[in-house]
Amino acid sequence: MAKLKIIVSATSFFCTRIEWALKLKGLEYELTVEDWDKGKSELLLKSNPVHKKVPVLLDDGVVVAESKVILEYIDEKWKGGDFYPLLPQDPYERAQARFWAQFADDKCAFGTWGACRAEDALEKETAMEAALESFAYLEKQIEGKNFFAGEKIGYLDLVAGWIPHWLGVMEETGGLKILDAERFPSLHEWARNFIEIPLIKECLPPRDMLVNYSTTLLSKLRSQAPNKP
Amino acid sequence: MAKLKIIVSATSFFCTRIEWALKLKGLEYELTVEDWDKGKSELLLKSNPVHKKVPVLLDDGVVVAESKVILEYIDEKWKGGDFYPLLPQDPYERAQARFWAQFADDKCAFGTWGACRAEDALEKETAMEAALESFAYLEKQIEGKNFFAGEKIGYLDLVAGWIPHWLGVMEETGGLKILDAERFPSLHEWARNFIEIPLIKECLPPRDMLVNYSTTLLSKLRSQAPNKP
Repeated sequence: MAKLKIIVSATSFFCTRIEWALKLKGLEYELTVEDWDKGKSELLLKSNPVHKKVPVLLDDGVVVAESKVILEYIDEKWKGGDFYPLLPQDPYERAQARFWAQFADDKCAFGTWGACRAEDALEKETAMEAALESFAYLEKQIEGKNFFAGEKIGYLDLVAGWIPHWLGVMEETGGLKILDAERFPSLHEWARNFIEIPLIKECLPPRDMLVNYSTTLLSKLRSQAPNKP
Repeated sequence: MAKLKIIVSATSFFCTRIEWALKLKGLEYELTVEDWDKGKSELLLKSNPVHKKVPVLLDDGVVVAESKVILEYIDEKWKGGDFYPLLPQDPYERAQARFWAQFADDKCAFGTWGACRAEDALEKETAMEAALESFAYLEKQIEGKNFFAGEKIGYLDLVAGWIPHWLGVMEETGGLKILDAERFPSLHEWARNFIEIPLIKECLPPRDMLVNYSTTLLSKLRSQAPNKP
């Protein structure tokens, strides 16, 4: 079987969650890293013509895009036996994991990014309040547990896995504070532990690279903002 | 076992797709219909405190929200034996169904609704062009097939199932034309046939109710638009 390939960018946590999943499954893969300075690669445009976004998984002739769809694909293709399960078995627990994964992406990640981008003070405060409210829901999901799935890393841990590393970068470059240890003690504790797991840690991009990327992106977006002269 | 209950609104296609799934599975259920004139019900607010949206499935003590999450839950809880399968078995085919379901909701449904809402002529044209581009992708998915899943109704047919009935209402009330028989012959043919299947047809809300609802909603949204005096 041909080795699995993932088209990624060096800074995207949507890509890192796929790497984590493949490592948990014990699967070998190679990365094709997009260089945004050169524009999107032919391979990316051909593989994901609809969204033209990373990550994309290339598996022996088939192509799967959209990170949460890829995670489910990986979990369903390599299951049983010694393969590490990402999603729980019980239908209700699976539904819960999917619900909160969608929430973590839509409300927490995009919510935080919205607060980062906001320039107007009132807009920023409103976006940050909304993000804090979303994080409060996530805090309740992890309370009293080591991982979102219980005792072992699971699907929702991978999806929320940007929080321990990328969130701090967003806070720094966007002038925010979200993951306060007093406000969100369980989430803070989970984040601190999650990032120390060797398999998780070894896939993390260097923090200064993320800071540079985020700073440049925010500056570019602000100069393009429609309310600018 | 207690009968399944779904909290719905009378006009939402996100709710109707759940009814279709339960009927395909041969499961009995009862509807609790929200009356938006009276505000959101206690039951809805208690059952889905995060999003406060319909549909919500209440199944013997557990609560599942978000329509595509509910569809997967139904398919995973009532599977095997005589139960009608919603998603295919093959991991890649499942990934494809999920990818296109997300696309159909995000790009086609919300894209069309965006074009409906737009008041400014240029904004409307841009939104409609984007919606047409999205429908062209969906057209390719149904080309040469009776259903998105092949020979039988599947998950993606249920998710795209708003097109045969609700899209015409959006076109009429929003002043658009999307589902042109010459431009999208396969999608048009699928829509015409899908709506005639008795199990599908019997769950459809009356068209005039949808027209009234959409007209009232659009008028309300327009009077609230931020660029209005």
